[in-house]
Amino acid sequence: MIRIYFAAGARNWPGYRDTLPAALREAGIEAEISTEAPDPAAVDYIVFAPGGDIEDFSPFTRTKAVLNLWAGVERIVGNPTLTQPLCRMVDPSLTEGMVEWVVGHTLRHHLGMDRHILKRDAGWTQIVPPLARERPVAMLGMGELGAACARALAALNFPVTGWSRSPKTVEGIPCAHGEAGLEAVLRQAQIVVTLLPKTPGTENLLDARRLAWLPQGAVILNPGRGALIDDAALLAALDGPLGHATLDVFRVEPLPADHPFRRHPKVTVTPHIAADTRPASAARVVVENIRRGEAGLPFLHRVDTRRGY
Amino acid sequence: MIRIYFAAGARNWPGYRDTLPAALREAGIEAEISTEAPDPAAVDYIVFAPGGDIEDFSPFTRTKAVLNLWAGVERIVGNPTLTQPLCRMVDPSLTEGMVEWVVGHTLRHHLGMDRHILKRDAGWTQIVPPLARERPVAMLGMGELGAACARALAALNFPVTGWSRSPKTVEGIPCAHGEAGLEAVLRQAQIVVTLLPKTPGTENLLDARRLAWLPQGAVILNPGRGALIDDAALLAALDGPLGHATLDVFRVEPLPADHPFRRHPKVTVTPHIAADTRPASAARVVVENIRRGEAGLPFLHRVDTRRGY
Repeated sequence: MIRIYFAAGARNWPGYRDTLPAALREAGIEAEISTEAPDPAAVDYIVFAPGGDIEDFSPFTRTKAVLNLWAGVERIVGNPTLTQPLCRMVDPSLTEGMVEWVVGHTLRHHLGMDRHILKRDAGWTQIVPPLARERPVAMLGMGELGAACARALAALNFPVTGWSRSPKTVEGIPCAHGEAGLEAVLRQAQIVVTLLPKTPGTENLLDARRLAWLPQGAVILNPGRGALIDDAALLAALDGPLGHATLDVFRVEPLPADHPFRRHPKVTVTPHIAADTRPASAARVVVENIRRGEAGLPFLHRVDTRRGY
Repeated sequence: MIRIYFAAGARNWPGYRDTLPAALREAGIEAEISTEAPDPAAVDYIVFAPGGDIEDFSPFTRTKAVLNLWAGVERIVGNPTLTQPLCRMVDPSLTEGMVEWVVGHTLRHHLGMDRHILKRDAGWTQIVPPLARERPVAMLGMGELGAACARALAALNFPVTGWSRSPKTVEGIPCAHGEAGLEAVLRQAQIVVTLLPKTPGTENLLDARRLAWLPQGAVILNPGRGALIDDAALLAALDGPLGHATLDVFRVEPLPADHPFRRHPKVTVTPHIAADTRPASAARVVVENIRRGEAGLPFLHRVDTRRGY
């Protein structure tokens, strides 16, 4: 009998109460799931989420893997007691949701929808946007999510250039890397999407110096991590030539009601909804890793704790 | 020497002054273009647009084709003096622009963007939309534009059903037709796009009876023709269960400043910008038909004046 400790918090349990047993049945795995602190030495797998129920992983001596329900692992990867393998969530529905948010907000800014939604034109000013093929997009971060978004935008004719810290090859999408690559990509981008993991190397990636590389009127979409952008530098750039920022993630969440982002006319806040883990498909990903652990196969989406993602 | 009469109005000439000669040169065709009324009996081809410079086509006895710069031909097709072949504009960039508008506004409604753009949530209400795969879309009209939009939405996982008056087969998109098909399609659609030509058979296609088939909260996008929807019935439905209407085309354009659509909270008006003919690519389409006329080949996009499109 496999013992699973659902330590992802009481808030997350309702979504998994039925879906996790269903996914286990589907895979033919017999397991016992506990949500109340079990004997740590008896736990085979931990299902986890930031803000979950474990601070100290050291008593879980028998645990084969910690299976995170989120794509981001920055709030657990630095935990010095974590010696067990850690796996990120790569939920196909999470990727789908992210692609929909990124493509939707890219087209919103591309088409200049806000003036119509806000009813700013009581007349008949026919501002026809350029075609997507004339609107360069920069995708900062070309992991699972970034590459999927880049491909969806390219399918709509947007000229997308990918960027990542180290060299990467993604079919059909030209990719740049390093500091010189970043400058080249940003200098020609009219829409910039930040989809990098939060690591010491990506914190404040978009600071005052690099924001100044963007052309007049450029738009930033951040569905990645709040810390990728220097908040004060962003606000200063928005008071200047930057066109707009649509932000889904923040250094502090929920974003405080009195944060300047809330009332800036060039900022749109969405409350961390760009990519939500959907329990039904996430449960299948968790169970697939349990199946692999039991079969002695390598885990999927295992985090390199040295790199931090 | 081929003689072309640019009779599409002085307003349109600046866009074609350079692009039309360039496209002719590119095709190796020698031609003379006049914008002032030439001798009608000497004109080989007429380039036309609604509101253009010809009321009576009968003196143009030598004219091989009337080449319309717009996709819609309802303002010319009924002209009884028109006996020459009439061709619609099928501009690849027009299709691209239409796909961008339709996909953009579909995603806008799918994601519930307006509440964030209008800053209706000062808190942190995490309303996560369903995935696109859970959001049925109905595409009324499966011509060039409708089929292209249907394919782009299906590529983003939206379950799209096409509908047209007579049976049609479009690869990858299930298609219905006729009155019974329309009821079935509308009863399950959460987003409806109307992209039909305006003909006596499509006028008021969405009337009170058929609007009542839509599920609670459904959204209508009309980038086709204003007359496809019964304005009064639409307003009544919006005061009831209908979720929203985003309209790009109207019975009278420009839409009068005091029209009820202007101030209805569930209506977004865009000023006929969903698909604009772009002169550079439209000129190439015009010239391709001139080349075909000279080579004795059938014209592209020829209008069936009996059907009206």
